[in-house]
Amino acid sequence: MSRNLTAKYLIETSLDVEKAAQMMAGEQSSGTFVKIPGETDELKANHAAQVIKIEIIGECETPTLPGAKRKNGNTIHRAIVELNWPYENIGNNLANLCATIAGNLYELHPFSGLKLLDVEIPVEFTQKYKGPRFGIAGTREKTGVFGRPIIGTIIKPSVGLTPEATADQVKILINAGLDFIKDDELMGDSPHSPFEKRVDLVMDVINKYADNTGKKPMFAFNISGDMDDMLKRHDYVFSKGGTCIMLSMNWVGISAVSKVANHTQLPLHGHRNGWGMFTRCEVLGMDFLAYQKIWRMAGVDHLHTNGIRNKFCESDESVIRSIKACLEPMHGGYHAMPVLASGQWAGQTVDSYNAIKTVDIMYLCGGGIVAHPGGITAGVKSVIQGWEAAVQGIDLQTYAKTNKELFQALEFFKS
Amino acid sequence: MSRNLTAKYLIETSLDVEKAAQMMAGEQSSGTFVKIPGETDELKANHAAQVIKIEIIGECETPTLPGAKRKNGNTIHRAIVELNWPYENIGNNLANLCATIAGNLYELHPFSGLKLLDVEIPVEFTQKYKGPRFGIAGTREKTGVFGRPIIGTIIKPSVGLTPEATADQVKILINAGLDFIKDDELMGDSPHSPFEKRVDLVMDVINKYADNTGKKPMFAFNISGDMDDMLKRHDYVFSKGGTCIMLSMNWVGISAVSKVANHTQLPLHGHRNGWGMFTRCEVLGMDFLAYQKIWRMAGVDHLHTNGIRNKFCESDESVIRSIKACLEPMHGGYHAMPVLASGQWAGQTVDSYNAIKTVDIMYLCGGGIVAHPGGITAGVKSVIQGWEAAVQGIDLQTYAKTNKELFQALEFFKS
Repeated sequence: MSRNLTAKYLIETSLDVEKAAQMMAGEQSSGTFVKIPGETDELKANHAAQVIKIEIIGECETPTLPGAKRKNGNTIHRAIVELNWPYENIGNNLANLCATIAGNLYELHPFSGLKLLDVEIPVEFTQKYKGPRFGIAGTREKTGVFGRPIIGTIIKPSVGLTPEATADQVKILINAGLDFIKDDELMGDSPHSPFEKRVDLVMDVINKYADNTGKKPMFAFNISGDMDDMLKRHDYVFSKGGTCIMLSMNWVGISAVSKVANHTQLPLHGHRNGWGMFTRCEVLGMDFLAYQKIWRMAGVDHLHTNGIRNKFCESDESVIRSIKACLEPMHGGYHAMPVLASGQWAGQTVDSYNAIKTVDIMYLCGGGIVAHPGGITAGVKSVIQGWEAAVQGIDLQTYAKTNKELFQALEFFKS
Repeated sequence: MSRNLTAKYLIETSLDVEKAAQMMAGEQSSGTFVKIPGETDELKANHAAQVIKIEIIGECETPTLPGAKRKNGNTIHRAIVELNWPYENIGNNLANLCATIAGNLYELHPFSGLKLLDVEIPVEFTQKYKGPRFGIAGTREKTGVFGRPIIGTIIKPSVGLTPEATADQVKILINAGLDFIKDDELMGDSPHSPFEKRVDLVMDVINKYADNTGKKPMFAFNISGDMDDMLKRHDYVFSKGGTCIMLSMNWVGISAVSKVANHTQLPLHGHRNGWGMFTRCEVLGMDFLAYQKIWRMAGVDHLHTNGIRNKFCESDESVIRSIKACLEPMHGGYHAMPVLASGQWAGQTVDSYNAIKTVDIMYLCGGGIVAHPGGITAGVKSVIQGWEAAVQGIDLQTYAKTNKELFQALEFFKS
């Protein structure tokens, strides 16, 4: 038995922490709430999850989540717990891996908090799940962008544009120098913007631009939907010369994303909308460290991470940790490209670079590019200049003295 | 435009509630954090989500979730908000529906709490999503159980049994009179219990029993995994005379579950492991009211709801509400069978019935049947007797006077 599945949790409980951890291990392997005849010593030795680490890290005044059984008078502890399972329990199956590490245990009565922090996925999974087919290198090759972040934006308004209006916007954006454009996650295949029509018109614009300039900007078409529709839409995008497809990972789900990843001839842009549900509560859900490993294993090439000073609730520290997590090799590979987005403009470039020390990212700006006072072309230039400054170790104000578009951006967007 | 997609939320914010609600509507439709040129009045009229209701329901001392922007000195309000979208925004697409009602809005900075409470799914979806193919009627037909709950249990130990040991246990359980048995959600297709071997041996036992008795107990085989594997496993179960398949809904995901539902010739047993992540925090995630509608639309026939006085954290009030939700018709149909489980035995029968006034449920007992002092057959009888008492309006103690197995259960399991 190779005990090579390990998961790390933050727990909060008023029970004895050791007992609570053993209950997690029991629920997620061979135990249950009464003694069962078939749970022999041999079976337990081979299949019971083991508690391999317990570290108490703090105390709480009151239980964070409701519903937990409380031992009156007992201290409520927070602790880090690590559990370990043999690969043989689950087999080569991502859905079952998740049922094992993130299943019923969230509902167990001792816990007023339980969050999956991290997971080590068994090496056997690399036999079946080949991961991102394109990753960073393949995405750079398809966009022709090297040595700096891939600069992108999202079609806005998110929803409501006709295919014609979308294509008109794409024309403006690529003429302005953008490397990457994406559908909003709200835009799929709807009566007001039928998917194939949108692909036709957008790719017509992009293909003509590529013919004229030799540069083909990447457009991530949101193919999210039913299984067969997604494969059909992938094929359609590919047939029209498109270079990227997008999936709403949480809703499409692991099994279908993995199927698309096995089928795809295009990088798979992973959108994590709904992610707030998993992450907003400090002691519930799943940390991005665990989350991104599951999706990289499933084959996603690009992973949204937010950017620093975003318009959402995520702290800069958390954002930086997420970006670094995506860039950390997994079983020696599975390279996914982090996608920084939400309220980004030139202003965050130097601080982002100083924290992550790489340009192997996508950097998506909405208003931060299109609302630039000098126009969209100037907006793109301002962001590229910001990253030039970052890589050269020059502060933005200094670099702005000789770079007009950056200067304008700093004047206009400063908060 | 038919504005027939409506979602209801619980929110918590220190911002002006009206402004916060408008921000949700903007993020989830045509708006963004800066004014965008393409957001014309016409586009807004046709595609902007509308706030159709705001009801302030209370105040909080401190923000429940971290990360929200706080207006110092402002009261933190809790409120019910209803948003409305035109069907035309999303098209006939469950994944996009979820991205619309449960996407980025969880991360918006005004909110120290945001939970999706309910959703009205557009009637157009009934054209594409046919829902549970078997539901309550089909499940009763396949099991031959009428007029009382379908009594079931789970193979335990959850994980670690060989196919031979599983089949041996099935033999004991069906001889004891159980109507329904399921794989634990941890058991899929693993080296120690290969799927096909398990199906072969279990169905051999069940088919022989059916030949001898005319009654075919239902076994829910956990087919959860990759897309093609799941279809193959479904076909294998069907070819061996099996009558049910099980899916870990949250991990398999909407697109793949819907694909299995279109393919299946067997009832689809929906396991919600991981559900605690969505529900444990009072002001984050998703209420079961919304959750079950999505999965019924996707085609799940049986839906886990927990039972009252369960071993988990869920209150009886919440359990009863969930059971009733599953039984409420949706667009006039989409009948799913609620699956009561977790710590169930004869003791909860009367109270459950009094609350739900129906026997159209599955009632799964683990220890509550197999640990019965008179043996498993007596365990099954005790539960059936409990439901007889319930339907006849007799209290358990009275009914136990003339029903030995129920009497023994009440003596043994009383807490």
